[in-house]
Amino acid sequence: MLALRYEGGRLGVAEMGKPEAAGEAVVRVTLSGICNTDVEIVRGYAGFEGTIGHEFVGVVEGADDESLVGRRVVGEINAGCGRCGLCLGGDPRHCPDRTVLGIHGRDGAHAEFLRLPAVNLLVVPDEVPDERAVFCEPLAAACGITERAPLSAETRVAVVGDGKLGLLCAQALALKGAPVLLVGKHPEKLRVAAARGIETATLDQLKGRARAFDVTVEASGSESGFALALDLLRPRGVLVLKSTFHGKTGVDSARIVVDEISVVGSRCGRFGPALELLAAGAVDVEGLISEEYSLADGLRAMRRATERGVVKVLLRP
Amino acid sequence: MLALRYEGGRLGVAEMGKPEAAGEAVVRVTLSGICNTDVEIVRGYAGFEGTIGHEFVGVVEGADDESLVGRRVVGEINAGCGRCGLCLGGDPRHCPDRTVLGIHGRDGAHAEFLRLPAVNLLVVPDEVPDERAVFCEPLAAACGITERAPLSAETRVAVVGDGKLGLLCAQALALKGAPVLLVGKHPEKLRVAAARGIETATLDQLKGRARAFDVTVEASGSESGFALALDLLRPRGVLVLKSTFHGKTGVDSARIVVDEISVVGSRCGRFGPALELLAAGAVDVEGLISEEYSLADGLRAMRRATERGVVKVLLRP
Repeated sequence: MLALRYEGGRLGVAEMGKPEAAGEAVVRVTLSGICNTDVEIVRGYAGFEGTIGHEFVGVVEGADDESLVGRRVVGEINAGCGRCGLCLGGDPRHCPDRTVLGIHGRDGAHAEFLRLPAVNLLVVPDEVPDERAVFCEPLAAACGITERAPLSAETRVAVVGDGKLGLLCAQALALKGAPVLLVGKHPEKLRVAAARGIETATLDQLKGRARAFDVTVEASGSESGFALALDLLRPRGVLVLKSTFHGKTGVDSARIVVDEISVVGSRCGRFGPALELLAAGAVDVEGLISEEYSLADGLRAMRRATERGVVKVLLRP
Repeated sequence: MLALRYEGGRLGVAEMGKPEAAGEAVVRVTLSGICNTDVEIVRGYAGFEGTIGHEFVGVVEGADDESLVGRRVVGEINAGCGRCGLCLGGDPRHCPDRTVLGIHGRDGAHAEFLRLPAVNLLVVPDEVPDERAVFCEPLAAACGITERAPLSAETRVAVVGDGKLGLLCAQALALKGAPVLLVGKHPEKLRVAAARGIETATLDQLKGRARAFDVTVEASGSESGFALALDLLRPRGVLVLKSTFHGKTGVDSARIVVDEISVVGSRCGRFGPALELLAAGAVDVEGLISEEYSLADGLRAMRRATERGVVKVLLRP
């Protein structure tokens, strides 16, 4: 099978053996999405080597649970040890011995087939086409913000970054009833959120908004985005750090101390609520699709994903 | 009167006029303490110019409330506008129009006299000598940690940094019943905490303690201290950022996201509980006093305060 792999400091499309079940489920990938984390891995983030990709939808080809075979599924990306307290509690996201699809110790989704524990798979409702279902992972991550920063209808929220992650975060948080401002540099991307009734602003439209927000979400993956998310926050506000990127970020730590800010990291969310939002059509994800490439054309797709103005790039095996 | 002032990029002891009451209380300072923030201000932190110093004990010389005159007092350092919601609620620490003694818009405590709103003053019980009372501000700041990171008797806490702030934080948190580890580089300083029954460790004694703590407190004021406080923290743990220092800190933001860490800033605490601890003799502060200088010798005292192995340096007007 074909797979988009990062190995020995190089990214390439390689021919390799189909994964064996080995007690897990084997999924034939029908569509996968390129995430900024994929791009960061190629820059050295997480020290990962292997098949990249963790956003996918596919069809179960083999599983111990025969009722799963032939079903269209998405899959949570953290595979726990199954024995620790966290795993036994049903949430392997922080299992110390976990592997993570296409990120840590486990080949990923930009491939014709992948392997995941059957317990990680969720069947996709028929009314959700592949082009929506493939957004389940990043949408779940966006919804996961409220696990870390509870919101009410009075919470003033600003999302910094109008890339695919920022657009999903803004939509997911607006659905909680909170007044959300999406801040970005790209009017054409901001329009996706504006079309859903979300207030948007470019950087030069932020006058008078300093310290005006209870919660800000850093979804730009840049040091300047972090600084802006801090500027927009009221004393004792919460800055949700959402993007993972390689290297150290310069932070004005005195501002965090003096204004007693909370900076809270937020990684993966659960898929159930995200799948419900996709089924209900509550979030615009199709508007985020910039282009689709064949998996064989994965190198060009990855290059395209880093270009200015591009939102989500999909890969079809 | 004499005052230790930072002006025009230079620190010096200057002769200047005694402050006028102007509706506030005038306090004759009997003892003041040098804080790392004083040192940072001289490095450019907070952009402050004027008389530095915010830890003091003194005697009220003039106040509208005559019952205060002649009383020995300490004083909370944030002077609010008195009109905003925060001030009317009795907590001016985040009043947007506040001044802060010796830090922001208000001459400080390394002087023969200072001025503060009478509402900021707390009368010192007779059994607390000046040499203990002068620690009220930093001890209150240490106690204030639990406003930002609630502790139980099960919370595993590590304090990073065995300077005066770290020693006060470790003692204040241990009094909450939590198991506390104080980490530092100076065996002679760690002994102050060990004598109070607190577990201590030097950097080479930390093997096997990575990710073993629920709460860590960064009290070293260094980038390496921040990195260590992060290393010691379990997933979804809380890192309390306590030191203020000038410039940007390089932070491994990916670690914060992946392990969903909360980094919470903590600045000032209320004086009441700290004064009670001092009155009860519950905290060793005398053990932190390295030396006392006359205010006239303030420059030498400030230099001394930055030297290795030195803990608290006091100034006597």
